[in-house]
Amino acid sequence: MTDTAVDSRTPLTLLGAGAMGTALARAWLAAGHQVTVWNRTPARAEALAADGATVARTAAEAVAAHRLVIACLLDDASVDDALDGADLTGRDLVNLTTGTPAEGRARAAWATARGARFLDGGIMAVPPMIGVPDSGGYVFYSGSPEAFEEHRDTLAVPAGTRYVGADPGFAALHDVALLSAMNGMFAGMLHAFALIRREDIAPKDFAPLLVDWLTAMAPAVHQTADQLQSGDYTKDVVSNLAMQAAGIPTFLRTAEEQQVSPELLAPYLELMRKRVAQGHGDEDGTGMIELLMEGAH
Amino acid sequence: MTDTAVDSRTPLTLLGAGAMGTALARAWLAAGHQVTVWNRTPARAEALAADGATVARTAAEAVAAHRLVIACLLDDASVDDALDGADLTGRDLVNLTTGTPAEGRARAAWATARGARFLDGGIMAVPPMIGVPDSGGYVFYSGSPEAFEEHRDTLAVPAGTRYVGADPGFAALHDVALLSAMNGMFAGMLHAFALIRREDIAPKDFAPLLVDWLTAMAPAVHQTADQLQSGDYTKDVVSNLAMQAAGIPTFLRTAEEQQVSPELLAPYLELMRKRVAQGHGDEDGTGMIELLMEGAH
Repeated sequence: MTDTAVDSRTPLTLLGAGAMGTALARAWLAAGHQVTVWNRTPARAEALAADGATVARTAAEAVAAHRLVIACLLDDASVDDALDGADLTGRDLVNLTTGTPAEGRARAAWATARGARFLDGGIMAVPPMIGVPDSGGYVFYSGSPEAFEEHRDTLAVPAGTRYVGADPGFAALHDVALLSAMNGMFAGMLHAFALIRREDIAPKDFAPLLVDWLTAMAPAVHQTADQLQSGDYTKDVVSNLAMQAAGIPTFLRTAEEQQVSPELLAPYLELMRKRVAQGHGDEDGTGMIELLMEGAH
Repeated sequence: MTDTAVDSRTPLTLLGAGAMGTALARAWLAAGHQVTVWNRTPARAEALAADGATVARTAAEAVAAHRLVIACLLDDASVDDALDGADLTGRDLVNLTTGTPAEGRARAAWATARGARFLDGGIMAVPPMIGVPDSGGYVFYSGSPEAFEEHRDTLAVPAGTRYVGADPGFAALHDVALLSAMNGMFAGMLHAFALIRREDIAPKDFAPLLVDWLTAMAPAVHQTADQLQSGDYTKDVVSNLAMQAAGIPTFLRTAEEQQVSPELLAPYLELMRKRVAQGHGDEDGTGMIELLMEGAH
């Protein structure tokens, strides 16, 4: 690597050296970026000095070091604490701290009022995926399109990037939505394993069946999207909600026979039952989304 | 097709001509099998006569016609009703009627006591997938290994086959377990769409992100299986339960901000919280399966 190549890489400040922050710092350092790091507990930041990072004594000092400032802290309150005395004028603040859409929007207004451009990020990866090409991990970004354009190559170093709009709440919204869906899948998976647990079925024999089935069924999401956009929830329905609801007793009785609590499954079955009772048995499951959005029902 | 080829195909009786039974009958008829069909409502059976099926006036008459008898009825009680006066001696009864593992086992004992060999089946497909090569649909079979061996080629005509053991309850158990997991995934997906519903995000732009993410995360099932078999729930943990639980408020507050009921997500988050409170924060989520199996907790 020539000095010129090194110099062309944007230097940056990283606030937070937890597991994720440390992985991010190492990825940028390995790619030849100059990195100034600050962490509330100094030892974690100092561990990165061996990798070539400059350790700042205060967050304000770290922010003063470079124009591009990346925060990867515990939560939104930690961002307040860290940046309390820092001068953000002319800075590009990229907030990778986990938060809600509203926190992303409020932080954007806060940063803009302090003279900074702002990007919020939602990390769809765990630390071991950071800096690993083709790991499948990526980061949602939203907020200032100009800041994203300027820094997209730098931001792409630790993981893939997906810019999802100028609304600074959208990165967190996409992040939480995808992780929520994943939690649902994991809940279903736990229930499935619980059902076979007392039987002479090896989990490792069962696992490939489960992975293949979930993978084959995931594209049903496209049909849901299509129905939401057309507003016609009966469009291309294969097994309508009434037919699906006819299977509810089988799900519940199987759980009972296998001595498994139905707690993870029951709310979905109950919602299905409600939607059918409201006269939507000819539809696909898409209309259940409306029940989730009505609040009290 | 020569007459010899036609003659070599096993003739069979099909009880039930609902959407699934009709699809099955058409697949066997198209492959050159002689099919005798009975349905409680005669019109549905008669519709298959045009495809070459022989229509029986009673289920007993249909059962008398061929050694291989396949039932695809509404529920287990319908099997009782249909086969009440039939002579099953020397018959191979394949029950594709949806049911629970206990129903499969009871039906096996019932059939055996009447001189029949028995297979239970769990159909992992919707009617439009039946008879379509490489549709991805298949049927779980369990029960008499001899009956499965003898009829495996015939059974493979409408969809792929997966024999999962001599225990006649295992086909239904695998079926319900996989569908339960799918319901969990669909519940998560509904919650995710609800979260973005009030925002300027097109469902069709969001869908590919969701499909890719669920597809990328589904193989986590293998790690759960590995942990269950080793009994070590801390094995290869990347993001432990305590770290995951730290994200619970973000999930719940995002749902609140987006005015989405957390009902489909909350039980999973609550279970996670319980497991952490019991001192298992260093583990993966696998241990939550134990909480599901304890009944009251």
